[in-house]
Amino acid sequence: MSKILSCPTPAVVIDLDRVTANIAKAQAHADTHGMRLRPHIKTHKLPRFAKAQMEAGAIGITCQKLGEAEVMADAGLTDIFLPYNIMGADKLARLKALAERVQMSVTADNAPTVDGYAATFSKNAPLTVLVECDTGMGRCGVQTPAEALEMAKHIAAAPGLTFGGLMTYPDTNRHAEAERWLADAVQVLADAGLPAETVSSGGTPGMWHTPSSVVTEYRPGTYIYFDRSQVAAGVATYADCALVVRTTVISRPTPDRAIIDAGSKALTSDLLGLEGYGYVLTYPEAAITALSEEHGIVDLSKCDTRPEIGDVIEIIPNHACPVSNLYDFVYLSTGGRIIETVPVAARGELT
Amino acid sequence: MSKILSCPTPAVVIDLDRVTANIAKAQAHADTHGMRLRPHIKTHKLPRFAKAQMEAGAIGITCQKLGEAEVMADAGLTDIFLPYNIMGADKLARLKALAERVQMSVTADNAPTVDGYAATFSKNAPLTVLVECDTGMGRCGVQTPAEALEMAKHIAAAPGLTFGGLMTYPDTNRHAEAERWLADAVQVLADAGLPAETVSSGGTPGMWHTPSSVVTEYRPGTYIYFDRSQVAAGVATYADCALVVRTTVISRPTPDRAIIDAGSKALTSDLLGLEGYGYVLTYPEAAITALSEEHGIVDLSKCDTRPEIGDVIEIIPNHACPVSNLYDFVYLSTGGRIIETVPVAARGELT
Repeated sequence: MSKILSCPTPAVVIDLDRVTANIAKAQAHADTHGMRLRPHIKTHKLPRFAKAQMEAGAIGITCQKLGEAEVMADAGLTDIFLPYNIMGADKLARLKALAERVQMSVTADNAPTVDGYAATFSKNAPLTVLVECDTGMGRCGVQTPAEALEMAKHIAAAPGLTFGGLMTYPDTNRHAEAERWLADAVQVLADAGLPAETVSSGGTPGMWHTPSSVVTEYRPGTYIYFDRSQVAAGVATYADCALVVRTTVISRPTPDRAIIDAGSKALTSDLLGLEGYGYVLTYPEAAITALSEEHGIVDLSKCDTRPEIGDVIEIIPNHACPVSNLYDFVYLSTGGRIIETVPVAARGELT
Repeated sequence: MSKILSCPTPAVVIDLDRVTANIAKAQAHADTHGMRLRPHIKTHKLPRFAKAQMEAGAIGITCQKLGEAEVMADAGLTDIFLPYNIMGADKLARLKALAERVQMSVTADNAPTVDGYAATFSKNAPLTVLVECDTGMGRCGVQTPAEALEMAKHIAAAPGLTFGGLMTYPDTNRHAEAERWLADAVQVLADAGLPAETVSSGGTPGMWHTPSSVVTEYRPGTYIYFDRSQVAAGVATYADCALVVRTTVISRPTPDRAIIDAGSKALTSDLLGLEGYGYVLTYPEAAITALSEEHGIVDLSKCDTRPEIGDVIEIIPNHACPVSNLYDFVYLSTGGRIIETVPVAARGELT
């Protein structure tokens, strides 16, 4: 094993061939259905993959934090959507500084947030603001199309702001409801003379649903890597999953138990409704039943063959995005060979 | 609010006065009961607090990863216990380099791990190895006192290794069982002429149990900050908790719902058997019912008074240790005033 191939565990290894295929497949899907693609970088947090997404045909990127947007702007990305209520003097100043060097757009679902934007931006360099809509997810967002219109009017009334349309993060299991909600809101806005230029939706599983009649722009994130939750949702196979956590079996205390050096600090505690903390390649009957910070407990009782102490095994995590956030750097592989390490430049950007 | 007091959210704020009190209380407890204290730095990951623990009377520190030990050694800590099976050429070389500059000790629960240590260390500078024992936790560790003796013999037979005693991370709810296990093993070892110089146990809740007749050294971690799980376990009050996550209410979509800018990237998904993702100070009836990466969903339906958009609220997380691992830096406060930021030097050390 050459030096470049070795990676002390736990480690994240990203399969570049699968990344390329996943980017191409999503872009083709969007192109076929007349949707613009604006990938969410939260999954990879890597400027090089954001650029690859742009080169494949994306019209811009989505970030969730100003710090992520700053990293991406520094790396040369030029069109960034930040679907979040940005509040407070410090953050508004950072938003303004960003908007002076790249194309920024944001969202709001409440008047104080709009007022903050309005006080920060002026007519000669306006900020585009979309209204966030709660179409069934129960998180942020105005609750009705009438409230969306009210917020759009509030935005449009500010000299330094431009009303840009609607944004939602829908409940994947209530796709039709979200569609109706957005269609109603689009109509209400059009009737009021405030057309929604952009209607932005997100979430990787939902992207593959019956094409939307109302969504113009999509913000998928996880599709670049996929993960166990996406396989469970039926939108990918394990052969599509580009991110694995490599881990070593450090103990075999009993015939049925293996302990691996990947715990919650390497895999996160995210369950996303699944049983166990990841899918074990080569040993698919193995169940990761519990994690502490630096240990994973693996039940081998259903496995015919079993890994030994010192064996390296690979795990597809339940949720790829927060895993990226745990690693200062990741390994990149092609053709099954690790060829490079790359710092996760936008990791840990909390504000 | 002066500049030094402001901190964009989400942010971790550590109350230095409580840290000092928590360190003193644990050291006094250990002194009273004749136990040596070897605090686990995983909770804070800060050299300055490791030094404060030493100054209060600790005999050394505990780290879980070589990277953590390297950071602590660089900062001047000189006696480090690493209770883990260290495997692989890369890690054994790092362990050897560490042992050449500070006092290192480790554990093993299997022969291949002992063999790796034996091949790395020599008689003129031996490595102290304790045997990890599974006293009921069901994680790593030899399964019986007879296996502990076998492993101790394996260690003692290697010219470059010194048998140092026993180590366990007990199941807090099976304290008496762990005591019996260790007492039996100590007897078995003494009978074989391989006395256990050190018997090391860990876990903050267990530290306050009836003093052990067999444990000589304790590795508490969370006690320096405490957290919601420790309060639930009855070993601390919220007034003892030194770590809070500050977060801003960024949306109030409905009368009963608040959205905060702390999600799983700020609080972790750790539940530790609790309901909800943290304890909300000032609004104790609020329930953090769900987290996505950058949003927390708070149910206010049981609250008489409710926070407004823009309000900053403080959360005591379920589990302080992995929260520390998410932040590049934390704020330090005294007398309720933020006075300083400090980088979390050993954050993200995975190998």
